[in-house]
Amino acid sequence: MKNNVNREIPDQILKDHNYEGFKTVDFGNPEIQRVAPKVTAQVGPSKVVESIKKVVSETVKDGMTISFHHHFREGDFVFNMVMREIIDAGYKDLTLAPSSLTNVMNDIVVEAIQKGTVTNITSSGMRGSLGDAVSHGALKNPVIFRSHGGRARAIEEGAVKIDVAFLGVPNADEMGNANGMNGDAAFGSLGYALIDAQFANKVVLVTDSLMPYPNTPASIKQTQVDYVVKVDKVGDPDKIGSGATRFTKDPKELQIAEMVNDVITHSPYFKDGFSFQTGSGGAALAVTRFLRNSMIENQIKASFALGGITKPTVDLLNEGLVGRIMDVQDFDKGAASSMKNDANQQEIDASWYADPANKGAMVDKLDVSILSALEIDTKFNVNVMSGSDGVIRGAIGGHQDAATSKLTIISAPLVRGRIATIVPDVTTVITPGDSIDVLVTEVGIAINPKRQDLVDTLSKVPGLPIFTIEELQQKAEKLVGKAQPLQFTDRVVALAEYRDGTLIDVIKEVKD
Amino acid sequence: MKNNVNREIPDQILKDHNYEGFKTVDFGNPEIQRVAPKVTAQVGPSKVVESIKKVVSETVKDGMTISFHHHFREGDFVFNMVMREIIDAGYKDLTLAPSSLTNVMNDIVVEAIQKGTVTNITSSGMRGSLGDAVSHGALKNPVIFRSHGGRARAIEEGAVKIDVAFLGVPNADEMGNANGMNGDAAFGSLGYALIDAQFANKVVLVTDSLMPYPNTPASIKQTQVDYVVKVDKVGDPDKIGSGATRFTKDPKELQIAEMVNDVITHSPYFKDGFSFQTGSGGAALAVTRFLRNSMIENQIKASFALGGITKPTVDLLNEGLVGRIMDVQDFDKGAASSMKNDANQQEIDASWYADPANKGAMVDKLDVSILSALEIDTKFNVNVMSGSDGVIRGAIGGHQDAATSKLTIISAPLVRGRIATIVPDVTTVITPGDSIDVLVTEVGIAINPKRQDLVDTLSKVPGLPIFTIEELQQKAEKLVGKAQPLQFTDRVVALAEYRDGTLIDVIKEVKD
Repeated sequence: MKNNVNREIPDQILKDHNYEGFKTVDFGNPEIQRVAPKVTAQVGPSKVVESIKKVVSETVKDGMTISFHHHFREGDFVFNMVMREIIDAGYKDLTLAPSSLTNVMNDIVVEAIQKGTVTNITSSGMRGSLGDAVSHGALKNPVIFRSHGGRARAIEEGAVKIDVAFLGVPNADEMGNANGMNGDAAFGSLGYALIDAQFANKVVLVTDSLMPYPNTPASIKQTQVDYVVKVDKVGDPDKIGSGATRFTKDPKELQIAEMVNDVITHSPYFKDGFSFQTGSGGAALAVTRFLRNSMIENQIKASFALGGITKPTVDLLNEGLVGRIMDVQDFDKGAASSMKNDANQQEIDASWYADPANKGAMVDKLDVSILSALEIDTKFNVNVMSGSDGVIRGAIGGHQDAATSKLTIISAPLVRGRIATIVPDVTTVITPGDSIDVLVTEVGIAINPKRQDLVDTLSKVPGLPIFTIEELQQKAEKLVGKAQPLQFTDRVVALAEYRDGTLIDVIKEVKD
Repeated sequence: MKNNVNREIPDQILKDHNYEGFKTVDFGNPEIQRVAPKVTAQVGPSKVVESIKKVVSETVKDGMTISFHHHFREGDFVFNMVMREIIDAGYKDLTLAPSSLTNVMNDIVVEAIQKGTVTNITSSGMRGSLGDAVSHGALKNPVIFRSHGGRARAIEEGAVKIDVAFLGVPNADEMGNANGMNGDAAFGSLGYALIDAQFANKVVLVTDSLMPYPNTPASIKQTQVDYVVKVDKVGDPDKIGSGATRFTKDPKELQIAEMVNDVITHSPYFKDGFSFQTGSGGAALAVTRFLRNSMIENQIKASFALGGITKPTVDLLNEGLVGRIMDVQDFDKGAASSMKNDANQQEIDASWYADPANKGAMVDKLDVSILSALEIDTKFNVNVMSGSDGVIRGAIGGHQDAATSKLTIISAPLVRGRIATIVPDVTTVITPGDSIDVLVTEVGIAINPKRQDLVDTLSKVPGLPIFTIEELQQKAEKLVGKAQPLQFTDRVVALAEYRDGTLIDVIKEVKD
């Protein structure tokens, strides 16, 4: 069948995996029976286990679903320590269900696939050697990609049932009270991991810093934890927030950032009490800087900033330009270290951040979001997953989720090197064009025709070049020419869910 | 059958209500399948409903289970406002499942019983006109009394399924983010209500203070809330913490308090890093004062103080004598207003406080608890529920839960007026003697014979009079004479659960 973003979804896939095709960005008001974990009662006095090896042998069985979080980002030591023990113990047919997979995890996951340890993966994304292996058919079953909100939904409704969650934390006490704010490897918000702590049958904390009991604040609570393992080091502090806070000097990025700021500040949403999510990356940080100046000039304050948080956003909080930071993850040390000192920087879990199947997520109240794209097509559909060679090299993250904001802006260069960003049809649809309002490139903007109100408003902004998206696509094509169509086999190697759990696209095996 | 505290439990009761008789204070390590609520998805932008009447009509149906919390204590306005609408709308056969019932709720519950609106009640306790009515057979079905930890267990495992929770809060935003710390009617910790917010199918917040969005800290989260109702006033600030912080001048209470302190400080548990729960009431507060002096003298600091918190305990935190306050409820304004300013006063929910069926509650780590008694018998069984006339006038509260501490002290006068506190057999067993270690009265102490170690240790304390509990019982009897046996009919009007969900006793209808 073809779904509502015109993607061919093989009937066999729908049948085998019990999926429906993507229909609409409107989630509606379904009543959902939540699921709950099996809890094994214990009274302590301590949950400390001597080694990862021991706790793996006590918890993991063939065929189980195991999970991790990715808050340590490229500085993660825990994932490799745990997976090493699991692979060496010879387990088979595990489902790997981390909140996402960072590059430091790639090689060992490839090894786990090759040895039959892991036969299913669900993640926000993947890159590098792992993305390459999966795109070339290494995994037995298709990967399932979910957004951060979609993962929370899937866990809460039981589509993902986590048997054992291995959660690295920079501090914990002997009973499992832990947070992400203190310790050598502090990363700030535990947002994604909080869902695993709540829903996994068994929860194992791995920490390098055993604190006196009771350890507070307790983002993860002793009532959720079965085991605590003390290791030498859980992560490399220098790589946890690596490279996120640089301010761009790239003139193209600055041009885009300034134009994004123009779109925001001339939109009807730019008024006292507005809210925004800017994300990380050079252009996004520049937007935050421009936005700051505009807020001061216009005496406008934001009610909240959302999403992955950076130091520049924390600065806005400290300046009183933002009332609250709603913090599901921190992208740099400045943001990570701020949460413990400022009650207005509230830790939120992935469900509160972005789950459509709850009683109201933060993204539902979001006015403005600035998102990136590997590709965007003339239907405004966005690809943040597969590269120009068809190989998986991205992550949904909160893209689909934040795109439901009232003003969703894709900031992207017209071309990257010899590759067009704006294309007739994206390789993989991750976020439907229906939820995208404006595309900003270095040469000008394109407004989704369904937003005639924005066309009317932004047409009046002096010096803001407006094009149709077809015009921008043609400009890109003129610069780099028509791309050769990619070659895929018929085998489906990955499924991309929309945040509501329908299938928005499939990714096929790359033919070299 | 007779259960393990020698109480006759009618077989029909065990059968009708699917109960087992109490066996042991040892909960073991069962694996328990938790339950979860039905969630109706919504995206806002606001959950504010114009009136309680409207939200009642949208949520309540005949036969449902509805819940409330009792954090407003005797200053509660919310319970009466909601119950008024429910009674007037003519609903039938509701189960009332509040965390407890305070005196301000009595009359309207009696009315609800008389009109057939309420036919089942489960609560921590009840007093006054309601206790009287129930003791005289007013309610159709037996009341079920549960401890705070037992209630959390029952909700988590599905024995209590809350359809609608009506939760009064001193502040909330339009989406339902709320805490107990700010606002005119602030009461501090939302500990008991957090369980309802997590497990009820529908959650209604009632507040008198609508805050700008997003309202933080959010003890209750928007992801848990369906409706927010704004009313004029949720409570009377002067009655929320009424009378709790008085320091006793009663020489008998001071004598008991000093002896309790002697027992604690000469026990093996009084060492750096120990933990305690003192509770409220004149003698308990005096204990806190004596304990403070002993801690300073002996240069001993506590790791945590637990339970219902009072200003004197907060003072210990501020002085650095206590590392953390683990706060499930606050008994006075001083304690209530402290939590928002001190990260070391950690809000905990009822499950974390005391549920035996989780991965570790605070009470499991508790060294010393000081508890009260209406009666204690020569088997050390304690009654905190029925009066000397057999009428219900008490509450389990955290009694059974905190009694699992390593050193559980019952502080009680030998007699109250013409009524003995120490008796051959308590009217109702609430807390089994197996979990009581020492009884302290104004004339001396009695040590549970199973604690020979404490007998050995405390015998060496100069000036500490030690008796057998039979001797103390006889002293009491000598003072006030033998009590006339109470007269009951065969009808069971209330069931008292032990915290593990077994039946520890039944309460029968009073024969006048």
